[in-house]
Amino acid sequence: MQNQDDNLLKFDIPEIIYGRGSLSKIGQCAARLGGEKVFVVTDSGIINAGWLDKTLEYLKQEGLRYIVYDNVVTNPRDFQAEHGVQLYLKKDCDVIIALGGGSPIDTAKGIAILATNHGSINEYSGCNLVLHPIPPLVCVPTTAGTGADISQFAVFLDIKKKMKMCILSRTIMPDISLIDPELLRSLSPELIAATGMDTLTHAIEAYVSSLSWPMTDPHAIHSIKLVAEHLVNAVKTKDITALEGMSIASLEAGMAFSNAILGAVHALSHPLGGLYDLHHGLVNSVILPAVLGQNLSHAIPKFAHISKALGLKSKGMSIEDAALHTPEKVKELIEALGLPTRLSKMGVDAGDIPIMAEMAKDDICMLTNPCSYSKENIEAMYREVW
Amino acid sequence: MQNQDDNLLKFDIPEIIYGRGSLSKIGQCAARLGGEKVFVVTDSGIINAGWLDKTLEYLKQEGLRYIVYDNVVTNPRDFQAEHGVQLYLKKDCDVIIALGGGSPIDTAKGIAILATNHGSINEYSGCNLVLHPIPPLVCVPTTAGTGADISQFAVFLDIKKKMKMCILSRTIMPDISLIDPELLRSLSPELIAATGMDTLTHAIEAYVSSLSWPMTDPHAIHSIKLVAEHLVNAVKTKDITALEGMSIASLEAGMAFSNAILGAVHALSHPLGGLYDLHHGLVNSVILPAVLGQNLSHAIPKFAHISKALGLKSKGMSIEDAALHTPEKVKELIEALGLPTRLSKMGVDAGDIPIMAEMAKDDICMLTNPCSYSKENIEAMYREVW
Repeated sequence: MQNQDDNLLKFDIPEIIYGRGSLSKIGQCAARLGGEKVFVVTDSGIINAGWLDKTLEYLKQEGLRYIVYDNVVTNPRDFQAEHGVQLYLKKDCDVIIALGGGSPIDTAKGIAILATNHGSINEYSGCNLVLHPIPPLVCVPTTAGTGADISQFAVFLDIKKKMKMCILSRTIMPDISLIDPELLRSLSPELIAATGMDTLTHAIEAYVSSLSWPMTDPHAIHSIKLVAEHLVNAVKTKDITALEGMSIASLEAGMAFSNAILGAVHALSHPLGGLYDLHHGLVNSVILPAVLGQNLSHAIPKFAHISKALGLKSKGMSIEDAALHTPEKVKELIEALGLPTRLSKMGVDAGDIPIMAEMAKDDICMLTNPCSYSKENIEAMYREVW
Repeated sequence: MQNQDDNLLKFDIPEIIYGRGSLSKIGQCAARLGGEKVFVVTDSGIINAGWLDKTLEYLKQEGLRYIVYDNVVTNPRDFQAEHGVQLYLKKDCDVIIALGGGSPIDTAKGIAILATNHGSINEYSGCNLVLHPIPPLVCVPTTAGTGADISQFAVFLDIKKKMKMCILSRTIMPDISLIDPELLRSLSPELIAATGMDTLTHAIEAYVSSLSWPMTDPHAIHSIKLVAEHLVNAVKTKDITALEGMSIASLEAGMAFSNAILGAVHALSHPLGGLYDLHHGLVNSVILPAVLGQNLSHAIPKFAHISKALGLKSKGMSIEDAALHTPEKVKELIEALGLPTRLSKMGVDAGDIPIMAEMAKDDICMLTNPCSYSKENIEAMYREVW
């Protein structure tokens, strides 16, 4: 993003450690980053699943002290980062571990930003406004979808404006992402489905983004293939091979979107998260087919690849024809997952569409969509899936 | 490598900044890493091409002071790292820039290792023996082949033993790789060809390595495709599109091999570099077909992909048949490049083959080859291309 003006491209990701049972390395990771007193950010779901206890055990084995902060909710609020950092500073912690899905990871990033940059989190909404390096940060994702463990993004709910704000800054890249697919076993089928659709949205948006390049493309397209191959099975059976497939899909989508950025699906999704506090992955899933229909003609060859990656038998088809099948292939997947397809069924008031369209138009993610949209275009897409 | 025992996999790369003209950001990169007095490691070829002057100009623009160290030769010697670090420490430098091909980059890594770990460079030969973090390191590759700007490897010539030694350590990963394909324009056609074959060797060895995984595979195979598409043209025309293709091929091969490690080609190549001081890329190119012939049966599906990536029209062929065409496709490329194909033409004495086979057998790169080889097997491969 910061390099768009001068045609430079970037690729930056954390160190990745991957494998079943890799959670056992969490203490070594924190120690290697210089940690003596670890600040663990997590939520009640993770605690109930038993993953926090295991984590603390591994920290103890490494001789580390720790403080746990579990005041985290879905769609984390701005004031929560400010609340968390007070504890971090008061307790003299020196490394942060985020253990959880997107919400604990984003909350941890917010705490990390304020620990060294001070002020309120809302000041950092936008591109590269976080100037000072954050404390060492290790992320342990417990969902396969957010990509927050790999990305330079953090998203908070601005409570006053009822708006999601995106912080996009090279300085907030985690140091290590420790990915243990075993952790996905405690997820509900609904959450596997919704976070899986978040992964698919990341991969598709990054693949057709105006900042995509040969470093991001192979990961984006491979992620789409893995979702097509594993998501339904992961939801229905929680088979470990399927969960591993989804955890790699999420990782690769994260590598792609953190560097190629996103597009209109996220721009339209953020206002719904802000106004209605809906689950980000679910909202992306509902919006995705409508945006695909409009984006298609602006990236025909890439959408043809996406269709094929989603399983389209394209033999004998023209590239245009193959591309046109993308929304249909995505809808087939959403149907197989049993996810909702209409905003009206999720409590969204059609009267809010104009104000949401205004917010979506100005969303930072719209900048890298393969084409630009007027407020009217955006309203039409919302209405298509209302 | 360090994680092989417990089935964990890793993926770690520097921050990558890519694009024509990106050299102009070198001062900003050094400053962002906290640099005030930069230690620039380069060689006479780079100075003659004018790239050092440009680099120093950009450092001045950023208000940085600098010291230049240009005492670098092909196949850098152990004592050179020890010599360089004395100057680094005496002059109180705080950031290292490596500007050049594999030799300046490896020399810079050696200096960086000794700056914080002390002793002699030979003490660090092996796996993860560099315990202390190195000073901030920015690499600016001027060839498209070495991958040293992306990797956790540094290779030095042990002068007493007349042996190449591999240092493989997570701590020696550069912080930033700044890749400007314009810099390739000053290379000779011979050097583009030899370093391009180094890239191809990295990509093939990483793709079939026992530590390859979905993070490394897409980059390895894409790198092979780019070499097939661009290398001959880059050598013959120095067309900037072909040079860009090769610089991305080198980058992706580096991402793959730094994390999946290498194989028998490098194991057989290192003794030749050690005993005869031959160019690493050239030696790899000569050895590659012989190793492919023996490795084939241990990774049939992957070699079928490699053949296709190299341009094999495989329609109607079985996977086995497609795989079997790999050595032939590689030989076609070597012939098109006009590179040597026999060790006897490069001054190698057949009487040294037994001792080289002994060294190759114990080379660290042999550990991740898809199969293991006896000393007799290795001698036979050397003799095949002698």
